[in-house]
Amino acid sequence: MYSRRKFLLQISSSAALMSAFPITKSFSEVMSNSYDGPVLRVALLGLGSYATRVANAMQSCTRAKLVGAVSGTPQKLKDWQSKFNIPEKNCYSYDTFDQIKNNPDIDAVYVITPNSLHRPFALRAASAGKHVICEKPLALNAKEGQEMVDACKKANVKLLVGYRMHFEPKTLEIIRQRNVGTFGKILYFNGQTGFTIGDPSQWRLNKELAGGGAMMDIGIYSINGARYMIGEEPTWVTAQETKTDPAKFKEGVDETILFQLGFPSGAVASCLSTYAMSNLDRFFLNGTKGFAELKPSTGYGPIEGRTSSGELNFLHVTHQTVQMDEMASVILENKKPIVPVDGEEGVKDMKIIDAIYKAVKSGKKETLSL
Amino acid sequence: MYSRRKFLLQISSSAALMSAFPITKSFSEVMSNSYDGPVLRVALLGLGSYATRVANAMQSCTRAKLVGAVSGTPQKLKDWQSKFNIPEKNCYSYDTFDQIKNNPDIDAVYVITPNSLHRPFALRAASAGKHVICEKPLALNAKEGQEMVDACKKANVKLLVGYRMHFEPKTLEIIRQRNVGTFGKILYFNGQTGFTIGDPSQWRLNKELAGGGAMMDIGIYSINGARYMIGEEPTWVTAQETKTDPAKFKEGVDETILFQLGFPSGAVASCLSTYAMSNLDRFFLNGTKGFAELKPSTGYGPIEGRTSSGELNFLHVTHQTVQMDEMASVILENKKPIVPVDGEEGVKDMKIIDAIYKAVKSGKKETLSL
Repeated sequence: MYSRRKFLLQISSSAALMSAFPITKSFSEVMSNSYDGPVLRVALLGLGSYATRVANAMQSCTRAKLVGAVSGTPQKLKDWQSKFNIPEKNCYSYDTFDQIKNNPDIDAVYVITPNSLHRPFALRAASAGKHVICEKPLALNAKEGQEMVDACKKANVKLLVGYRMHFEPKTLEIIRQRNVGTFGKILYFNGQTGFTIGDPSQWRLNKELAGGGAMMDIGIYSINGARYMIGEEPTWVTAQETKTDPAKFKEGVDETILFQLGFPSGAVASCLSTYAMSNLDRFFLNGTKGFAELKPSTGYGPIEGRTSSGELNFLHVTHQTVQMDEMASVILENKKPIVPVDGEEGVKDMKIIDAIYKAVKSGKKETLSL
Repeated sequence: MYSRRKFLLQISSSAALMSAFPITKSFSEVMSNSYDGPVLRVALLGLGSYATRVANAMQSCTRAKLVGAVSGTPQKLKDWQSKFNIPEKNCYSYDTFDQIKNNPDIDAVYVITPNSLHRPFALRAASAGKHVICEKPLALNAKEGQEMVDACKKANVKLLVGYRMHFEPKTLEIIRQRNVGTFGKILYFNGQTGFTIGDPSQWRLNKELAGGGAMMDIGIYSINGARYMIGEEPTWVTAQETKTDPAKFKEGVDETILFQLGFPSGAVASCLSTYAMSNLDRFFLNGTKGFAELKPSTGYGPIEGRTSSGELNFLHVTHQTVQMDEMASVILENKKPIVPVDGEEGVKDMKIIDAIYKAVKSGKKETLSL
């Protein structure tokens, strides 16, 4: 992931670097590639563009290794075998997927399908005795998500949600500063997440497959961002929907939703979720003694952050590389991440999404019980 | 206001300058101080810190002139006479104020008192046949504001609201770009206005005098900002209040309110009004083709602005100087400003404030009819 030279150049520019470093790799790991601890052997399921991004990022992982692939398209499996050096015996179609239970060389399945398929594939992976990593949103709603949590618990496998931002160094540095009181009493979070979505025929704009619209895909970043930036669980939500292109965003597929979350301390979050605008991707946290801003806050590219005290000069990391290495430690060594990524965390966000959709319809403040 | 040298230095850095310039002063006015047109002769009423700021700014005015003062404190009148060269015959106490009707050397009274006194003093000034400029908020509520509009109409005098941002060059440049389609279809405005208020005994935290809390004072900037940045009138509002310091912010005095406005085009505004945080003062306007940001957006100091195309390099102006010169033209020459500053404009904002307070209580979407 890093060249030695680049690493040494960058380390000199960041006094705070070492404190954040443990969440990515140990110094010795990076410098020597001498890691000889446990490795999580992962099969990716659903070989679309995001799976390809994860697979590429995993080439730089130390503690996680891409070893298998599951797809409904035979040609994709062939392509991945050659591109990522995956043995044919670790490849499955959706029909043969359940046989993965007999494969001792795969520890975990990372489900990267349209949202409606998260639950069935997670349940099948759990039945096969494999740990499950599931892309966000965890499920179509909290009820489905809870079924997944219960099934994985029953099967004695772990269930994680693919929340890559939960391991992002600048994000974690802001959380650290918040915890030590740098920003004083936290009063406000503003999250603006959205982009202009293209092809109207894609699954993300299909209610059956996506379970909703922008909220399920990009608004969810503001939801869990509000929670991890403020550091509390919200107790109420209000929401307002607007739709400027009903031909593209059909019934049940939200284009733009404003939502507000209230927290026990009195802090509030005000957020935007949209598929109709670009130029967003900003988190802003404000307290009585200072502020923190992440902009971009959730994109794949470098996250940029600053606080009342100045710029955060940290290493840029490939999110999915860090995520998969950290998830390996969570699964294999019971490591507790600073911001949780377990199934219960995913269910909390689904409960908030359920309440947002309810609040849009009721026009009222909906109570949350996370 | 500008030195010739500074002006020439700055003009070279801004290709867009000339298009904005007509809203401040004509080139020849600045360069020669040769203005010999009509001058609005103004008395300030309520000689607190903001009036002092206005009086200082008016020293650089061309078309408006500070000629009178009205105060309940005799010593302040003495101080102002010497400091601002105001003749004693143009000074009034609150008791003698109505005699201003017999003074042919004063054209207008600028009311800069606690909010609850705006209406009575505006009515008295109108009865005396003087034009009225009233600090924002126009009144304690829309009903009061409408009475003021009606009284001034009946007295055949003009009523303006002290909306200094309505003449701010970067703000107006963004409005110009929006009007020519630079940002595409406008979809979103985010206004964050607030500051940490000090002395708990001040009139701004007294319900009787202020009529409310942060919303009346600083939230109103986000309200009229949403309207002039989006360029439409909102049709609904929702609002959520939070209060973390009920000892400081008593019943009827709002500390922090989130509010949302919906517009006929489908655009939405999401705003924060607070007396409990600093590090705010940001306007963000987003459309399908680009964005505009003002940060700071409403403070007294230099406003800084940028769009998708880069920084807005404009002259920094003293807001109150430009405001008073422009208001002179509005009053004396019937000039129509790009963003209105008349009493009706003030009433619209009061209607929205009324609806925000109503929405906080009802927890529902309140319909607006401006």
